[in-house]
Amino acid sequence: MIKAISLDIDGTITYKDRTISIDALEAIRLAEKLGLPVMLVTGNSVPFAEAAAVFIGTTGPVIAEDGGALSLKGEGTMRKRVFLTDMDEEWILWSELKRRYPQAELSYSTMDRKAGLVLRRTVPVEAVRDIIKELGLNLIAVDSGFAIHVKKPWINKGTGIEKACEFLGIKPDEVAHVGDGENDLDAFDVVGYRVAIAQAPESVRSRANYVTEKPYGDGGAEAIFHILRKFGYLGDEDED
Amino acid sequence: MIKAISLDIDGTITYKDRTISIDALEAIRLAEKLGLPVMLVTGNSVPFAEAAAVFIGTTGPVIAEDGGALSLKGEGTMRKRVFLTDMDEEWILWSELKRRYPQAELSYSTMDRKAGLVLRRTVPVEAVRDIIKELGLNLIAVDSGFAIHVKKPWINKGTGIEKACEFLGIKPDEVAHVGDGENDLDAFDVVGYRVAIAQAPESVRSRANYVTEKPYGDGGAEAIFHILRKFGYLGDEDED
Repeated sequence: MIKAISLDIDGTITYKDRTISIDALEAIRLAEKLGLPVMLVTGNSVPFAEAAAVFIGTTGPVIAEDGGALSLKGEGTMRKRVFLTDMDEEWILWSELKRRYPQAELSYSTMDRKAGLVLRRTVPVEAVRDIIKELGLNLIAVDSGFAIHVKKPWINKGTGIEKACEFLGIKPDEVAHVGDGENDLDAFDVVGYRVAIAQAPESVRSRANYVTEKPYGDGGAEAIFHILRKFGYLGDEDED
Repeated sequence: MIKAISLDIDGTITYKDRTISIDALEAIRLAEKLGLPVMLVTGNSVPFAEAAAVFIGTTGPVIAEDGGALSLKGEGTMRKRVFLTDMDEEWILWSELKRRYPQAELSYSTMDRKAGLVLRRTVPVEAVRDIIKELGLNLIAVDSGFAIHVKKPWINKGTGIEKACEFLGIKPDEVAHVGDGENDLDAFDVVGYRVAIAQAPESVRSRANYVTEKPYGDGGAEAIFHILRKFGYLGDEDED
């Protein structure tokens, strides 16, 4: 049985330009209305992810910073933040990286983060990995295509979802996850049902129980309707 | 002539529960499509406000922290942040407040802020004002009903909009502002056209050129359509 939905944000409920799909927004609100809490899962910072949850109206824990941070709905407008790690080794890496490559730059949003560093792509990811190895740091560097994410190896969307499930009082295999990126594979590893958005790479599509026909945010809406029907939250006659 | 719209967020484009109105979202996208940049103006933190701008798709500067911070759209997903003040005196106030009132608490979102402190309402606003006076700090304390905002007296939505206009290359009287709170009066002071949302207090409604019939986010949509028609961006036949 599926008792919650976890949703990647960028490319899954948004268009290519990062604006939200109104169809996805409406589908999420329908899922919430039908009693299925929605968890947003993103590589972005906690305040960014919280804003998404507030505007959309999701009640599930928000999983931010690639899984390193959670934000839980509190009373009224309050929220509780839980960080699963800190940036101790990340700042050691940064110090050495900046010394060797003066052109290295933190992403403007790094100041909002507590559980992982984001670098602009002004330095090759290999250079970052070399320093991690040389200094013996327990970190990995992932090039998302937009930026280089530096984090602890055990921090990922899957561990974030597992932690969020503790707060929801459900098991990870009672979650359906929807995503479009390589980093959604860590979520796929722990959940009970997997949906890939049409434009996802083959490595992600091949691991999914269902692949949407539509791309980007419209695919996100399609994915949510598919899950609602598949697990009996919505009869076929209720569609659209 | 009106060349940009500035919009309060909470209560103006959202419902009472802070979720965004789809009508308001569509109206904002229409204004942008018709060549009228939209600026979001909020008491919330920069990353929260940036998320709103990204999801909605606004191109105007974002004005956050009660006017103390701006965020400008950069290349691709980059943004530039401009802070009009810092928290030097705010932290002096906090230190003394916490010493005298151990129950004093920072809002969980204060850690995201750089241009003004937000306190939970566990201490009366008068106590905060007494300490400001006693220590001779150049600060004011405003009780929003949700929290106590402590900031420099010259930081407000009006000065934020003036600064944003420099970046847009327009004059503040070429801006139409829409809002529903007492703190929107500072914006009303500097702009060329003023719209109040139905549920605004009389002090705000009486200063407006137009008061919407609908409340909250649906009123925000109504306000935007009113501005688009009033200033010739939308013929009467284009309505809805």
